[in-house]
Order: sequence, then C-alpha cells, then structure tokens
Amino acid sequence: MLLLIVVVLIVISCSDAKKNKTATINEKNVALPLPSWNDGKTKKAILSYVQKITDTSSADFIPINDRLATFDNDGTLWAEHPYVQELFAFYIVKKMVAKDSALARKQPFKAIVENDKSYFAKGGEKALLQLVALTHTGTTEDEFESAVKDFFATVTYPSRNVPVNQIVYQPQLELLNYLKDNGFTIFICTGGTVEFVRGISQQLYNVPKYQVIGTTFKYKFVDSNRVIIREPAIEIFNDKEGKPVSIQMHIGQRPVFACGNEGGEGDIAMLKYSQASLYPSFQLLINHDDSTREFYYQEKTNASLNAAAKNKWHVVSMKNDWKKVFPEK
Amino acid sequence: MLLLIVVVLIVISCSDAKKNKTATINEKNVALPLPSWNDGKTKKAILSYVQKITDTSSADFIPINDRLATFDNDGTLWAEHPYVQELFAFYIVKKMVAKDSALARKQPFKAIVENDKSYFAKGGEKALLQLVALTHTGTTEDEFESAVKDFFATVTYPSRNVPVNQIVYQPQLELLNYLKDNGFTIFICTGGTVEFVRGISQQLYNVPKYQVIGTTFKYKFVDSNRVIIREPAIEIFNDKEGKPVSIQMHIGQRPVFACGNEGGEGDIAMLKYSQASLYPSFQLLINHDDSTREFYYQEKTNASLNAAAKNKWHVVSMKNDWKKVFPEK
Repeated sequence: MLLLIVVVLIVISCSDAKKNKTATINEKNVALPLPSWNDGKTKKAILSYVQKITDTSSADFIPINDRLATFDNDGTLWAEHPYVQELFAFYIVKKMVAKDSALARKQPFKAIVENDKSYFAKGGEKALLQLVALTHTGTTEDEFESAVKDFFATVTYPSRNVPVNQIVYQPQLELLNYLKDNGFTIFICTGGTVEFVRGISQQLYNVPKYQVIGTTFKYKFVDSNRVIIREPAIEIFNDKEGKPVSIQMHIGQRPVFACGNEGGEGDIAMLKYSQASLYPSFQLLINHDDSTREFYYQEKTNASLNAAAKNKWHVVSMKNDWKKVFPEK
Repeated sequence: MLLLIVVVLIVISCSDAKKNKTATINEKNVALPLPSWNDGKTKKAILSYVQKITDTSSADFIPINDRLATFDNDGTLWAEHPYVQELFAFYIVKKMVAKDSALARKQPFKAIVENDKSYFAKGGEKALLQLVALTHTGTTEDEFESAVKDFFATVTYPSRNVPVNQIVYQPQLELLNYLKDNGFTIFICTGGTVEFVRGISQQLYNVPKYQVIGTTFKYKFVDSNRVIIREPAIEIFNDKEGKPVSIQMHIGQRPVFACGNEGGEGDIAMLKYSQASLYPSFQLLINHDDSTREFYYQEKTNASLNAAAKNKWHVVSMKNDWKKVFPEK
C-alpha cells in the first residue's frame, strides 16, 4: 500500500495531467488487483475480461458509457444468514413496542418479543411481508432514512458478533473498486427494499442511492406537506424475473457484468439477461461453500449452479477463491 | 472559445494536477457562464445559487453527492409544438402502413394517413395512448432503440423545418453543462416514454440512459430468448404528482435543483417536492412567452405561473431572458 501511495504521489507530480491519469490507473491495476482473491481461474478470468474490454485496440472493447455492472446484495456483497433487513425489522418492532407496550400482545409483534420462531416459519412469505410492511411503511422517506442510519450505527450481527457494516465481503469490495477503476458504473440490484439499501450504499459500497435498484413499495405524493409516503403494498418485487424488468426500467440497457449468488435462485434471470448483451459479457455466481469462514448452504433444486454450468458462468467458491471473506475488525 | 482553449491548455501543462483541475473549472465558469442568457435577474440568481452551494466555506454548501438536478424535457429542454414523440408515432405508423397497406383502413392509422386531425381531437388522451401503445410496444428494447435512432437521423421538425435535434434550447444546454461543471448530476424527468428519450439523451444532452426517468410501459422478461417485451399498458405515468413519486423510486432523494415549464401544469409537483429539500434549493419554470422565436402558449388556469409566484420560483421569460432560443443551424 505504501508503495502504491509513493507511486501515485510521484506520478501526480509529473508534468502532463492527462498522461498521468492513465499511468496512475495502470499502476494501480497492475500492482494490486483483487488482493483478497486467490490466484486461480476465477480471478484470472475477471482480470482477463476487464483487460480485453478496456483495450481500445481489441475487437472486444466496450465504450465507457456501456460498462455497466449489476450486483445482487444479500449473499453477494454481504452475508445473508440472517438477512440484515430482518434484523432491521426486529429493531423497529422493539422500538414500536417500547413506545406502545400493548403491541406486544398482537402478532407479529408478539412473536418477535417472545422470540417465537414458529410464527414466521408457519406464516411463510406472507407473514414476512406483513412484518416488512408494518416496519418499513407509513413514515416519510426522511424519517425512514434516519431510522436506517441509527440501526447501522448501533446493531450487531448476531451470528458473527460484529457491527453489521463488517459483514460485507472484502473480496467483493475490491471487485467493485477494480471495476470502477476501469470505468464501470456499478448498480446494486437487490431483493431487499430499495430505501433500506440506499440508506447504507454510499457508506458501504461508495454507490450512490440512484444506482440502487430494489423491491419498492407503493408511493404517494402528499401535496400539503410535500412528502412521499410509502403505502403498505409492494409495487415492484425485485427478485428472479423481476430483476431484468427492474434493470430495464431503471437502467434501460443490459449490464455487461452481472454478479449474484446461489441460495435462493434469485439471480438466474439477471445473469441470463446480462449474457444476452451484444457486447462480450461476464457472469459471476457466488457459491456459499465455506462452512468455516462464512456459511454453507445450497439450493435444494441446485438451479443456480446448474444454470451456471449450462451457461458457462464463472462460479466463485468462497472456500477456494477468497483469501479472506470479511474485512479486518 | 479560442481564449478558453488557450487558458485550458496552459493550465493543464502546469505542475500540480489537483490544483490545476480546480483552476480549469474556475476559469471556465468565470469566463463563459451561460453565454446565451441575457444578463438579468434570472441568470444572476442561477449563478449566485451555484456559487453559494459550491462554496465550502458557506453555510449553504451542498456536498457533491447531493447536488442532484431534475429537468423536464418537452417544453423545458426542447420544443413541444408538436410533441417530438407524436412525430415519432406518426413516423412508425407510416412504416407500419408501408408494410401492411390494409392498416390504412383501420383507426388510428386511417386518421394519420388521411391527416384527419379531428380523430385525435375527439378521442383525446385515450386515443393518443392507444396510438402510443400501438407504435411503442410489442418490440424488443433493441428493435425499439434502433427505430428511435433512425427517426432522429432522418426526420424534420415541421413547424421550424430543421432536424429534430436542432429544436433543443441552446440556453438550456448551457445550463446543463454549467451545472455538470459544478458537480451536479442531471436527471431528465419526462412525461414522454422513457425509452424514447433514452434513445437520444446521450447524444443531445450528454445524459446517460439511467439518468432518464419517464413514463413506463409494463415490461415482461421472456426467458426463452432473454429479452424484455413492452406490453401495451402504462405502468407509470410520469406527469404531475407522478413525477415526485418516480423521482423517489428512481433517485431516492429530493433534487436540489428542479426545472420545468408552464403549458400543461406537469411540473408543479416536481418543483414543490424539490423545494422541500433540507438543502437550499432552486426551482426554475420556463414561460413560453416568445411568439416570434418560439411559441406563445399559456395554461388556461395559469396554475404553473401562479404556483411560481406563490412559492417564489424563478421564472424564465424566453423572450427576455434568452439571447437566442435554438442552436445555430
């Protein structure tokens, strides 16, 4: 790192601003690409892809405006056992109950206060959506954003006993930066609700709010006080086939680089959509095969890994491809 | 312009890259801000606003990530008599009829082929939406984009007899550039359909597709050939109260600079929403009061100008505030 700083400082002090910028970027990529990735075929494939599509003399060159990348969030950029958004919902429920103790006798508040896991196990997706609607809607966007910031500042991720902002995957942070250094615009395309991820995207990933695409509630503009209110109804469910649809609505063109994870079959459609780009494209699928450093879980259907094999997508073995999983504490 | 180039070249060749960048931007703004705007209170207000919110020592300073601007398109960035999108619909109809002459006996094709204006006058918004659905949906996004590009390459704007890309307002192009030079991210927030404007936004305004927000059809992902098909149903109608809703969905925060036009009451809600920003904000409304160089038209209700007066928004008199309206041929 010190060497890099020295190189950058020397380069900046030279005489031709434009040449220097190119030199700085090249030095950076040659010196330190993806340090937390083990040398192996996955890392090699990423470096080789980025090299060819940024080489103006290559037939595979992609103009900078078309270098768009989409990343899923849960299980792709940060851990998802449990979902961070579920922790947030519980956090809000506890705040609501502290304000109005009578709520503790009503569902789904009761189940959370009493730590009754059977309620959500039995209720399935419907019970979870009810919980999300109760804890994520009915406020203005400013109030909600402030609650998200408080949550991230104070809450600990239970399965690892660290602040939630330390459950991002270090190799993926490096991948985001590497792509940005090579002219990519990064979009996060999450199954989570969009405002929740927007509340932390700049701080965690250096991705602005408007480059986050997610599940969206129904909005209403209230003219009298000029605010947007979220109503307890889902307008866009950004998962599976919903992802290409949201990408088209939001971005208006196919990403040339798409990254998701196996676990819930949620990213297959996004990766397929990316692969139909007229440009050379790259699909990356994170495989949760590291029971020691992260979690081991596989889809019952094996649909994501099957699709990866069939379509020749690149699969990241967390166990073998990553030197470390999480940032230093 | 030559002077500017010389200044920039001298500045670039100096020794400190970072200092130089600042110097270049300052020289540019001081030398040539908004040359097609007459000196007057509107231009002065724009310059003064941008100066204070980019001044780190000012209490009104806005961090670069929060310098977001939204611009309406029809009547705000380019002329709207007639709507360019209407010309495009007619252009597609003629292509469809050339392929299948039987269509010329069916409505709404018949009305267009026979130049029967009464059909749309009688049918109102419903007839227009039917026309847009027939000419804008049922294709893949690649096919549609290619049709938009062909249209812009060949069609002439009837009321001025110039290519359609010459009906943009020159002072507004300068305003977009001035805001970008000062760290703003520009979004176009149009009542037109989003893919249509995305097909030309980079070329005309240097705004990428993903920074265009517009009226949106219902999309469907077709897994077998990995394409998105637009269905003939409107998912989001991006006008009036729809604009703040779309901005929240797409950007996730209030723009600090918002610009619309009087004519259809379409931008009042967007300007109100922007004005409720916690930052110092700026609202600009274009008044079509120049019957000689552009068009003279006013809302029957006068709602936009009334809202501007009530809320102290800045009103552009095209007649008085602009030195010229359109770029040189």
